[in-house]
Amino acid sequence: MSIRIGILGYGNLGRGVECAIRHNPDVELAAVFTRRDPKTVKILTETAGVYSADEAEAHRDEIDVLILCGGSATDLPVQTPKYAQWFNVVDSFDTHAKIPQHFANVDQAASESGHVGIISVGWDPGMFSLNRMYANAILTNGKDYTFWGRGVSQGHSDAIRRIEGVQDAKQYTIPVEEALESVRRGENPDLTTRQKHTRECFVVAKEGADLSRIENEIKTMPNYFDEYDTTVHFISQEELNANHSGIPHGGFVIRTGKTGWNDENSHVIEYSLKLDSNPEFTSSVILAYARAAWRMNQEGQKGCRTVFDVPPAYLSAMDGATLRKRFL
Amino acid sequence: MSIRIGILGYGNLGRGVECAIRHNPDVELAAVFTRRDPKTVKILTETAGVYSADEAEAHRDEIDVLILCGGSATDLPVQTPKYAQWFNVVDSFDTHAKIPQHFANVDQAASESGHVGIISVGWDPGMFSLNRMYANAILTNGKDYTFWGRGVSQGHSDAIRRIEGVQDAKQYTIPVEEALESVRRGENPDLTTRQKHTRECFVVAKEGADLSRIENEIKTMPNYFDEYDTTVHFISQEELNANHSGIPHGGFVIRTGKTGWNDENSHVIEYSLKLDSNPEFTSSVILAYARAAWRMNQEGQKGCRTVFDVPPAYLSAMDGATLRKRFL
Repeated sequence: MSIRIGILGYGNLGRGVECAIRHNPDVELAAVFTRRDPKTVKILTETAGVYSADEAEAHRDEIDVLILCGGSATDLPVQTPKYAQWFNVVDSFDTHAKIPQHFANVDQAASESGHVGIISVGWDPGMFSLNRMYANAILTNGKDYTFWGRGVSQGHSDAIRRIEGVQDAKQYTIPVEEALESVRRGENPDLTTRQKHTRECFVVAKEGADLSRIENEIKTMPNYFDEYDTTVHFISQEELNANHSGIPHGGFVIRTGKTGWNDENSHVIEYSLKLDSNPEFTSSVILAYARAAWRMNQEGQKGCRTVFDVPPAYLSAMDGATLRKRFL
Repeated sequence: MSIRIGILGYGNLGRGVECAIRHNPDVELAAVFTRRDPKTVKILTETAGVYSADEAEAHRDEIDVLILCGGSATDLPVQTPKYAQWFNVVDSFDTHAKIPQHFANVDQAASESGHVGIISVGWDPGMFSLNRMYANAILTNGKDYTFWGRGVSQGHSDAIRRIEGVQDAKQYTIPVEEALESVRRGENPDLTTRQKHTRECFVVAKEGADLSRIENEIKTMPNYFDEYDTTVHFISQEELNANHSGIPHGGFVIRTGKTGWNDENSHVIEYSLKLDSNPEFTSSVILAYARAAWRMNQEGQKGCRTVFDVPPAYLSAMDGATLRKRFL
């Protein structure tokens, strides 16, 4: 029998989960829940229903795992504990400083209701976190580096769009190749913010806007741009639509470390991602963890978990003997 | 209280485990067991005893996990099930075709005795296997590639040394950069053995040996070299000792795959290792899994496990809250 998935929130991430389900024959989409008027939401899967988010509880018996596709700022802190009352849940909560509180809230709700909630799933947090953790457990004496990009930062793109005279914008975060190479050579550099990443902005200005003022406002914007070397390109809306409509991302997690009785040997562990679609890859990770949440709950487990707690085999549709034969 | 480790077999791997213990304050070396005369084996750790392998059972109460550092061809198939009678055990069994049988043997012995045995730990099998498995669970629609090197192949070096007229030799396996780049670009190439790796040999010939015959015998050696582009350099013993005494290795695990309703987006997941010392890195992985074996057994688990079955958090000396704070 398939694992029945519910999606709460049908934006880029929700649609990504729907696409990921298509690539996993052991799971099926049972329902999409939305805060919009359900009649206005068209989904791709013909066999699944679309309902108001308020009706979710009534569908609890039709869904094995509910995937929460809202934002970390205001949606997930409320939604994940709330829906853990009725469902096994998975979210991609990524506000790092608030993870301890979120973990505690979800743990309490899921423990009381007898469900499993897996939080902060995706690639960062998620696969990048896992690789940092594994690498640290192996090379206890070393140094960690994370680089992001080349990829679109939604937050930085939004910040540019709020500037007066800007019609549209896309911002790319780019790792500095020279810094990456130094890390890979095992030089253990201490890198400033400016030395690790640059920022490249493609901006559509409104007619008659003062381009040099816009460029200056971008480059000096506190927190977002002032600590980086930033390049600004003014382009037409047509060019932005044609060449910058994707949501690519990726990055690198590197740990360098020493072994040997006198630390005489050096090692480099590197994990990297190059993603055409940030939300679709994130969704694919989330769906694998939804499978794990269901299995763990079927075993009688309950409470909050993160990627650190889930045995890798639980993510795969294959059984243990097949996994050992194909991948070990 | 520290986790008390025993080492069976004090070669490169056993010595690597001893060094890894030095970098992990929560574990200690309790004893080394050897098939040689214990009096002839000098170890680095002053506080640990050296005993005959035959005496291991008598020390069962002094050891929490026994790490088996023998070879996969003849040692481990016998040793791992045998010592699982008395100890939690970890090995680095790497004869791929025989893993199902080895797993079954260790599972039976460990289940009967109430211990945990984790087999095939290291980097390949081990961390490479894990990365293949995670990447396949995320991108179910894709293609896998593993490249090894640049690194020393002990088996190929030994094969050269068996040729008449050869005094000493070291063989490096080298991934073909062009093939790697094609994979990273998502071109999904079908690669022959020759297109994936080259082999580079540094050979010390005995005085008066026929160099061209040796070179020809190497390059045409079935299974080992005939399917590869092989380069042979004749050098002096001094040069071999000075420049080729290390045991570096490494490699790349790459999965490329598609997502989207119509497979419209491509992704590349890459994991790579660059290791100064193959045995010391392998030992560092093994020690982390020894910690996991001990914890799983303390929880009441028993039987055979692989890296696919072990929750990542069990590898680390840190607790859950610390892991989430530092790595999530």
